[in-house]
Amino acid sequence: MRNIFFTVGPTQIHPKLGTFLNDGLKKGVYSISHRGREFGRIFAHTVSSLKKLLNVPRDSHVFFIGSATEAMELIIENCVENKSFHFVNGAFSKRFFLTAKELLKHPEACTVPAGEGFDFAGVKIPKSAELVCFTQNETSTGVMVEMKDVRTLKKRNPNKLFAVDIVSSTPYAPVDWSVVDCAFFSVQKGFGMPSGLGVLIVNNRCIKRAEELHGNRVNIGSFHNFPTLLKYARKNQTPETPNAMAIYILGRICDSYNKYGIEKIRKETESRATAMYDFFDKHSAYKPFVKNKKWRSKTVVVFNTPNGSASVIKKLEKHGHIVGAGYGEFEAHHIRVGNFPMHKMGDVKKVLKILG
Amino acid sequence: MRNIFFTVGPTQIHPKLGTFLNDGLKKGVYSISHRGREFGRIFAHTVSSLKKLLNVPRDSHVFFIGSATEAMELIIENCVENKSFHFVNGAFSKRFFLTAKELLKHPEACTVPAGEGFDFAGVKIPKSAELVCFTQNETSTGVMVEMKDVRTLKKRNPNKLFAVDIVSSTPYAPVDWSVVDCAFFSVQKGFGMPSGLGVLIVNNRCIKRAEELHGNRVNIGSFHNFPTLLKYARKNQTPETPNAMAIYILGRICDSYNKYGIEKIRKETESRATAMYDFFDKHSAYKPFVKNKKWRSKTVVVFNTPNGSASVIKKLEKHGHIVGAGYGEFEAHHIRVGNFPMHKMGDVKKVLKILG
Repeated sequence: MRNIFFTVGPTQIHPKLGTFLNDGLKKGVYSISHRGREFGRIFAHTVSSLKKLLNVPRDSHVFFIGSATEAMELIIENCVENKSFHFVNGAFSKRFFLTAKELLKHPEACTVPAGEGFDFAGVKIPKSAELVCFTQNETSTGVMVEMKDVRTLKKRNPNKLFAVDIVSSTPYAPVDWSVVDCAFFSVQKGFGMPSGLGVLIVNNRCIKRAEELHGNRVNIGSFHNFPTLLKYARKNQTPETPNAMAIYILGRICDSYNKYGIEKIRKETESRATAMYDFFDKHSAYKPFVKNKKWRSKTVVVFNTPNGSASVIKKLEKHGHIVGAGYGEFEAHHIRVGNFPMHKMGDVKKVLKILG
Repeated sequence: MRNIFFTVGPTQIHPKLGTFLNDGLKKGVYSISHRGREFGRIFAHTVSSLKKLLNVPRDSHVFFIGSATEAMELIIENCVENKSFHFVNGAFSKRFFLTAKELLKHPEACTVPAGEGFDFAGVKIPKSAELVCFTQNETSTGVMVEMKDVRTLKKRNPNKLFAVDIVSSTPYAPVDWSVVDCAFFSVQKGFGMPSGLGVLIVNNRCIKRAEELHGNRVNIGSFHNFPTLLKYARKNQTPETPNAMAIYILGRICDSYNKYGIEKIRKETESRATAMYDFFDKHSAYKPFVKNKKWRSKTVVVFNTPNGSASVIKKLEKHGHIVGAGYGEFEAHHIRVGNFPMHKMGDVKKVLKILG
């Protein structure tokens, strides 16, 4: 029996990953020069297919980097001289905030307890904040932020840059690029790929900001600063020798998603999420961790395990279903279930049946 | 006919790469958690196999990062407050120097013309330099630095940290870890892997230096600063979700090299290099670019093409042999031939025969 990974990333791989990996092998993708025409074609194709899938504006730029964690560092370095502002409700939104601290900036945050969302109407963002940072889907707790709230905030703060972590929400959750200046994700979640590639999407306002900072002798980093990434992206290249394999495979997977249809992917994701939340709402012991329905993530479903998570994980593992424990302090008290395009309703139902 | 890549990296893949890739697929390596026990075992195994292969001291640390280019940034950030000193004789040693400039340090350099090595006895390293940077094998020109020269310099500068770029020299060229404080490479050259993983090896002097700088409120970066990389490496983990596939495959390839024997790999590398240099020394048109024999790289053989490189590349390509053009300004005037453990004397002889 093959295991099915319902973990929140790395997770179940895309069903055609093996085919794509071996296609790359046959075509010599892992030997070609990252400065040559063939790689340029792969780069351009992946960017174009991804832009189509995520509805990214033509004049925004797609950068390939190492990880979503790296994206946080690059965004802070390239968009912030002194102050960023962060909406923190879990480990990953907190990491974005702490990244700014580590880089010797002076970030501020609006922090709410784990499992809760934000009362955006009541939040005052300091005037001096240059960048506002959201986590569309807090992977540690399964809380999501709605795009309409981001929109409202942007209207009230039109001159600040807005950055959104879309790590575990994409490609399911739409991004309103008219209010989001940069967003980033990694490929081991909604794209069902091996980890090792981060994707950072930035608009020209971010590029301009980075150039301004550089002009003011602010340290914006070296090979992966935005102007350098852009200089190479314009040639369909990266500054360093990149993870060409992952760039190639991401393109193939975007193609397959585009062919299948993002709206169909969205509907199916929502059906599986609804099946899970309905089940847990009615369950005698396992209740959804996120109480407020409008905050409940569709891609990371978290439920309480009053008698500990370990025995539940073991029970599911026996049947070949791998789920994740809670994050950090919740390790023993939560189960986290990833709900990505590779997952199937039939398997979700099996999981729920076992949880009875 | 399958092409054989004699390029300098990305290059010919390891003959068992396909097997290793598919083993990882079957074993679920691309789905497992990077915080779990199974990944920890893979991490520990790769570190141990690599340390054995490169003879790395027990108390030095192996960090997995995105690229060798990233390693340059991390070393400058974590080892230098003001001044690094660089031996520059080509594009990659220059990039190390420029990285320090981009990070707003005040580097100095000893620069010699392309194709030449250094007169180490005559070089005066400024007293205020905290770090001395070498490129063991300048991939852009095929010039190598001998470890005994590094040793002599270190004796004269015992309090400075020494960093060595071993990108295209490893695993062939030995490193004297008693004088080298940190070294780095990427896996798409001597290990015959797809690109996308950098490896950085640092000793405790570098860690201590990073901690000192951090204490002095110097920006040492965020998730990939040395103390954070070390904190996670001690748990057989990385700060971010890493390129687990590449870490797994690197372990398998190190195992295969260890089994084959590094001394045998060295001897065979030297035999192929000797065959090439002997041939070009005698050739009427194609002469080795590096005149001084003691500076000639064993792993990147560069020769002049008086009538342009393009026609030579095309001629070899027709026979399925892919070689590299010159780097930068030498694009049309040089051919660069990678000579790594995956390459075979029989194929080298075929290349030389075609070059007649």
